[in-house]
Amino acid sequence: MKVLIINGPNINFLGIREKDIYGEKTYEEICSYLYEKARELLLKIDIVQSNIEGEIVNYIQNAYGVYDAIIINPAAYTHYSIAIYDALKAVQIPTIEVHISNVHAREEYRRKSVTAPVCIGQICGFGIYGYVMAMMVFVNMNI
Amino acid sequence: MKVLIINGPNINFLGIREKDIYGEKTYEEICSYLYEKARELLLKIDIVQSNIEGEIVNYIQNAYGVYDAIIINPAAYTHYSIAIYDALKAVQIPTIEVHISNVHAREEYRRKSVTAPVCIGQICGFGIYGYVMAMMVFVNMNI
Amino acid sequence: MKVLIINGPNINFLGIREKDIYGEKTYEEICSYLYEKARELLLKIDIVQSNIEGEIVNYIQNAYGVYDAIIINPAAYTHYSIAIYDALKAVQIPTIEVHISNVHAREEYRRKSVTAPVCIGQICGFGIYGYVMAMMVFVNMNI
Amino acid sequence: MKVLIINGPNINFLGIREKDIYGEKTYEEICSYLYEKARELLLKIDIVQSNIEGEIVNYIQNAYGVYDAIIINPAAYTHYSIAIYDALKAVQIPTIEVHISNVHAREEYRRKSVTAPVCIGQICGFGIYGYVMAMMVFVNMNI
Amino acid sequence: MKVLIINGPNINFLGIREKDIYGEKTYEEICSYLYEKARELLLKIDIVQSNIEGEIVNYIQNAYGVYDAIIINPAAYTHYSIAIYDALKAVQIPTIEVHISNVHAREEYRRKSVTAPVCIGQICGFGIYGYVMAMMVFVNMNI
Amino acid sequence: MKVLIINGPNINFLGIREKDIYGEKTYEEICSYLYEKARELLLKIDIVQSNIEGEIVNYIQNAYGVYDAIIINPAAYTHYSIAIYDALKAVQIPTIEVHISNVHAREEYRRKSVTAPVCIGQICGFGIYGYVMAMMVFVNMNI
Amino acid sequence: MKVLIINGPNINFLGIREKDIYGEKTYEEICSYLYEKARELLLKIDIVQSNIEGEIVNYIQNAYGVYDAIIINPAAYTHYSIAIYDALKAVQIPTIEVHISNVHAREEYRRKSVTAPVCIGQICGFGIYGYVMAMMVFVNMNI
Amino acid sequence: MKVLIINGPNINFLGIREKDIYGEKTYEEICSYLYEKARELLLKIDIVQSNIEGEIVNYIQNAYGVYDAIIINPAAYTHYSIAIYDALKAVQIPTIEVHISNVHAREEYRRKSVTAPVCIGQICGFGIYGYVMAMMVFVNMNI
Amino acid sequence: MKVLIINGPNINFLGIREKDIYGEKTYEEICSYLYEKARELLLKIDIVQSNIEGEIVNYIQNAYGVYDAIIINPAAYTHYSIAIYDALKAVQIPTIEVHISNVHAREEYRRKSVTAPVCIGQICGFGIYGYVMAMMVFVNMNI
Amino acid sequence: MKVLIINGPNINFLGIREKDIYGEKTYEEICSYLYEKARELLLKIDIVQSNIEGEIVNYIQNAYGVYDAIIINPAAYTHYSIAIYDALKAVQIPTIEVHISNVHAREEYRRKSVTAPVCIGQICGFGIYGYVMAMMVFVNMNI
Amino acid sequence: MKVLIINGPNINFLGIREKDIYGEKTYEEICSYLYEKARELLLKIDIVQSNIEGEIVNYIQNAYGVYDAIIINPAAYTHYSIAIYDALKAVQIPTIEVHISNVHAREEYRRKSVTAPVCIGQICGFGIYGYVMAMMVFVNMNI
Amino acid sequence: MKVLIINGPNINFLGIREKDIYGEKTYEEICSYLYEKARELLLKIDIVQSNIEGEIVNYIQNAYGVYDAIIINPAAYTHYSIAIYDALKAVQIPTIEVHISNVHAREEYRRKSVTAPVCIGQICGFGIYGYVMAMMVFVNMNI
Repeated sequence: MKVLIINGPNINFLGIREKDIYGEKTYEEICSYLYEKARELLLKIDIVQSNIEGEIVNYIQNAYGVYDAIIINPAAYTHYSIAIYDALKAVQIPTIEVHISNVHAREEYRRKSVTAPVCIGQICGFGIYGYVMAMMVFVNMNI
Repeated sequence: MKVLIINGPNINFLGIREKDIYGEKTYEEICSYLYEKARELLLKIDIVQSNIEGEIVNYIQNAYGVYDAIIINPAAYTHYSIAIYDALKAVQIPTIEVHISNVHAREEYRRKSVTAPVCIGQICGFGIYGYVMAMMVFVNMNI
Repeated sequence: MKVLIINGPNINFLGIREKDIYGEKTYEEICSYLYEKARELLLKIDIVQSNIEGEIVNYIQNAYGVYDAIIINPAAYTHYSIAIYDALKAVQIPTIEVHISNVHAREEYRRKSVTAPVCIGQICGFGIYGYVMAMMVFVNMNI
Repeated sequence: MKVLIINGPNINFLGIREKDIYGEKTYEEICSYLYEKARELLLKIDIVQSNIEGEIVNYIQNAYGVYDAIIINPAAYTHYSIAIYDALKAVQIPTIEVHISNVHAREEYRRKSVTAPVCIGQICGFGIYGYVMAMMVFVNMNI
Repeated sequence: MKVLIINGPNINFLGIREKDIYGEKTYEEICSYLYEKARELLLKIDIVQSNIEGEIVNYIQNAYGVYDAIIINPAAYTHYSIAIYDALKAVQIPTIEVHISNVHAREEYRRKSVTAPVCIGQICGFGIYGYVMAMMVFVNMNI
Repeated sequence: MKVLIINGPNINFLGIREKDIYGEKTYEEICSYLYEKARELLLKIDIVQSNIEGEIVNYIQNAYGVYDAIIINPAAYTHYSIAIYDALKAVQIPTIEVHISNVHAREEYRRKSVTAPVCIGQICGFGIYGYVMAMMVFVNMNI
Repeated sequence: MKVLIINGPNINFLGIREKDIYGEKTYEEICSYLYEKARELLLKIDIVQSNIEGEIVNYIQNAYGVYDAIIINPAAYTHYSIAIYDALKAVQIPTIEVHISNVHAREEYRRKSVTAPVCIGQICGFGIYGYVMAMMVFVNMNI
Repeated sequence: MKVLIINGPNINFLGIREKDIYGEKTYEEICSYLYEKARELLLKIDIVQSNIEGEIVNYIQNAYGVYDAIIINPAAYTHYSIAIYDALKAVQIPTIEVHISNVHAREEYRRKSVTAPVCIGQICGFGIYGYVMAMMVFVNMNI
Repeated sequence: MKVLIINGPNINFLGIREKDIYGEKTYEEICSYLYEKARELLLKIDIVQSNIEGEIVNYIQNAYGVYDAIIINPAAYTHYSIAIYDALKAVQIPTIEVHISNVHAREEYRRKSVTAPVCIGQICGFGIYGYVMAMMVFVNMNI
Repeated sequence: MKVLIINGPNINFLGIREKDIYGEKTYEEICSYLYEKARELLLKIDIVQSNIEGEIVNYIQNAYGVYDAIIINPAAYTHYSIAIYDALKAVQIPTIEVHISNVHAREEYRRKSVTAPVCIGQICGFGIYGYVMAMMVFVNMNI
Repeated sequence: MKVLIINGPNINFLGIREKDIYGEKTYEEICSYLYEKARELLLKIDIVQSNIEGEIVNYIQNAYGVYDAIIINPAAYTHYSIAIYDALKAVQIPTIEVHISNVHAREEYRRKSVTAPVCIGQICGFGIYGYVMAMMVFVNMNI
Repeated sequence: MKVLIINGPNINFLGIREKDIYGEKTYEEICSYLYEKARELLLKIDIVQSNIEGEIVNYIQNAYGVYDAIIINPAAYTHYSIAIYDALKAVQIPTIEVHISNVHAREEYRRKSVTAPVCIGQICGFGIYGYVMAMMVFVNMNI
């Protein structure tokens, strides 16, 4: 099974500032951790990141026929990107939405996800571990 | 580590009707499955269920000093029970909110969780496996 | 045919106060009247009442496999109980919603019924006679 | 007792299309059925229909001093005709609002009735039988 | 004069957690304090508490013919319980609504009281002393 | 100067019911009164009335090239008839909107006029005398 | 009959700027015109103006027992002054609200009048002549 | 192929006033132009117009079994006529909605079409040519 | 302890009109009553009143360094005066908000207090006695 | 005449998935079809596509001085891209907005177009043929 | 060039309390600083302050014909004073709105300015220096 | 001190069209002017521009550790880019938001800034000079 992990805007800045919220690990360390976890779970993953909404759409389209599943953290775009929603709907690849922080405990507008309705489900609030949880779903459920 | 799983209204009716949505397993079979999974994870769990909002408040209060963590599926009460929110806030036991279905893909009013802001995080859309994911959070993260 | 009549909060207080609105009959007299009318219509009915939202959910769940139809007056819970809505949806027993007063002529928030979408239909404004009308639907229509 | 049944726009098109929703009976067959039922109930009825909002206002005004009661299905006009509301309020003839389908289970805007506050009550979801229920109210209650 | 004090959900948890907000006194100590104050004011009081909305409705109904006045702190149910509102309206016992904290200085949704319109008045923000203030109203005003 | 007075739905029912609100005069007596007042003011008026929105549109269109001014009381249609608004805008005849009752002291939805923005001004709350006031505007101002 | 005309903020600036909207007459000329018209109508009037909301409240209170009627143009305060509304309600002197321009043809927020519900009626869009129309109401109607 | 063109309120007033918006052609000239264009496209068309909402409903109903397609410009009724929506839904004749002006560039309330959801599509902003475009759809697409 | 009582607009008109709502006592009698009650409670009070929003701001600012506490009834300004809110926030003198009537049982807009969030608490519905209750808070609590 | 056709996000994915909605043609086949149709109409067209909002802004800016007209299908960006709206407003090139599906028959948020107010008009619901209709507008109207 | 600086409610209380937000300087020191800065910029300024909305209107009206420009900090009145908006619109003196704090980072209701639409521009978040920036605009731009 | 000036979409198109709003200067001339002004103020600036939301996020991230301050004009993205807000929050570089036009005097949706809450302050309405004002803030205040 081949999974594409797509990270949205500013996820690449984790560990540089706002360490009290997001922890001390840099984005590179996080990626290493995820690759390692994937190996343990016998999953083949690739991780991409972009700050550009349309590039995320590109990543989703290019995943078509190449990946069996997507784990996506659309970050800020979660809350307004109908374009990403449309892309996920178009490719029909099983997708899980992950958020590092508990979006329900932040600004009101972070509680609404434009993209989640087209996903299998959503995981939020468990930090980087949320990505591992999403991988385990793909390993353990018949999706 | 001792975890209390609290199920809200109508969860006890799973597997009787609406099998296409919630699967064929009865509530008893689901409970057995969760006890078994907990044993594998070396977690001690208890499972309670109530259709009554205030009884769920009671369960939460009684968990104080007895359980280290709560996994809660407030079901319909997710969307309007300030009483459950207040109870969770009062006991300050680490709590994870779980929903069997993807609440973002259903009626608009199911997308808002009154109780999630006071939880560590929320997991939705992964069926019964969501409870297992929540258990794994308690096992694998330092909460 | 066996019909369960479920009355929600404060219906048991009819005839004690607010007589100008709800008439002089006590709840017991009303129940007698309904049992009599049911006999005339050759319907077997049971009447239950509770002020507790979750107990109404219990009544609905317990009706499963026992009753052929439900007549429900969720009273105040009509306007916010997603739990009752979920219960009615889960058991899939043909249900008619009855209101004693004309909810459209009262406070704005009484005009919205959370529970009606999962019922066959709604009857409001005809006092106790509304229950008899609901019984006649079950007798006269092929539901 | 003399009752005027007023049907709003498109009710005259029942049984031609959308048969799965409204049944196979044509409007003429429905009228015959209602006249027959009225005879059984010893009620004298007249049935009128119009697609024009203002003509329905005319029917209501002309009913003044001629009919003892009105059964009205304002159809689409239910949701925005303040003119019909004003007419019903002006003539002060006891009126019952009937809807063939369960308006609570359709588009959101069908759940609000502009005209119901000035009626005795509302009946919805019981098909053509709803008119018969309304007749029975006039026969059996002291209105 | 006989007054019933009704406390809603989580009031029984005062003094256990969130001491910075609600003070160090346990619920039992608070009750003792109120009984003592009532004695000083020559009022006969009883105090009940429930986490269950419908039980609070029961308490209100049972107060009918037994108590001359009610002091109620519906806690979380203040903001959505039409059932409690209906119960207070049905029994027509003079009632004062009390809140321990200043609801206007908390979450937006705490500022709206569903139950207050049917009370004599509302007191909020003065901690436990608010109950004493309510007692004094019953002693000093001609209600 | 030639003025067309257009009355909307139910204005023709004045003086029959709701006499406490609208007075005892019948519509015919009101018309006589207005014709008389017009004579005094040396204005030539015609009065038309319709319960049908589109007929009011017809009256407005037919006024083009025939009347110098319009006094309109669109009654219920005031609050939703974009068709009447469009008609008034199309003919560009100076128009005054009159309401018999004070629309600001009634239902919230009566406070908004869809048609007033395209009129010279609005007069409300002065009963039948409001029409006379409108006539005097046309006599005394250079419109 | 003695009438107090109260003008709100910026009415005293008429004729200085925005002449295309409000005409070329200065506030003093307008006052002279109104005094003259009042004389013709055999009404005794006084005219006051203030830019201060609370002073307008003072004027209203001081009118109690001195004036038989009020003509008020609350200008900007029309749209938010509950204080003026309360003052008019407190003194219960028959009052007419006048606006120089057609408030329905300006910014959306000018269409709502906080003060009009407590007045007899409202006149808007007829320039300074609106005050004369209000005077004529007091002369010609039995208020 | 036989197409019915239905024009709503005030369309018949084109070319008389507001020529800067709608052009200089009278409604008769427009009709001639459309008949000519239809001939070129080998389409058989009829054109009807009414200012009355319910007459438009009549036209739609009468089109059943007679016309293969409808081109409708409901004008003002576009924005509130559930009756026309219901009629179009009832007859199930392929329909195209046309607006002469760009409704998105006018008042906010003109942007919402109540009727468009039941049409094949909508064309707006191209003047009279929009009708020709709609005819071409029926000629060139397999509808 | 020195307390300033600030009364907002129209409070000075109590007892003149609307006696059924506010009682028969004039404002002067109320003040005397409060001074007497203060003496009994060994509190030194001053009472000021103004109809002018900004003067109330002045009173609050001038209280700084002079008074230990404020009891304020902002009346109509309660619902929109950010200026008074800012003044109370600026001086940081412990303040209690009092309303004579039960604001929750009146117009919807009276239920929202702009000023309460910056107060210790709010008392409403107990008539003039509410001021005495506020004084007792300052005497009996450690504020 | 030279026309630029700009397609927004996911339009390039047509014909791959969701064939029931968008047909079986791939994006390349669609482009060929449009080039051919343009040739027939003697129009010179170029077609560009991007998933990136800002690139669409770039295409619009670069069209300035090069193209005489634009046909744009902003897809998802239709509903929130003020940037595209600003770009179209800045270049002032005559533009037509095209949507393949009937946006009025889909999710509520698809009914609002941020970009349409700055276009000549909008065409929706006619599939790929909508682009041809837009071309014909440029050929047949004097824009 | 002669500039009037108008400060709204509570600005005169700067430096007394809330020093962490507004700094340690008293209002007098701030005025001195501004006079000095004006001298450096060769601007003639006057500074006025009032807590009373209508007095600010007076200041604006009196500035007509006397001052070339206004710098206004309407403080709390920014968010609801249509009266100040009307005054600024009436005098048509070039005006700049200044806020000491960043209104966008405070309560939601502080983000809306009723008065800004009639100003040249708005400066917020730069403390007292914002006034100097406004002066520099008048010195350096051709306004 | 090193400052990065970031310009959002369509700012590069200034001076080409809409000259009446934005002046005759081309974007290149504006940049030259700003570089010159920066030299005068002894500030080192770089200016970048992008029409792509995510590229602006890139610019902000890349500024981290390189620039001491940011002046940003997010243009259209001001009103919906949570991504830019998150980026500014992540890098924690002192930032000032500048708008060329007075956003409060344009479309309603331009009045809300998603990005301003994370900036020091906002300057709008002063044309290109607004950038100079922002530079002066960095030179003259201790930020």
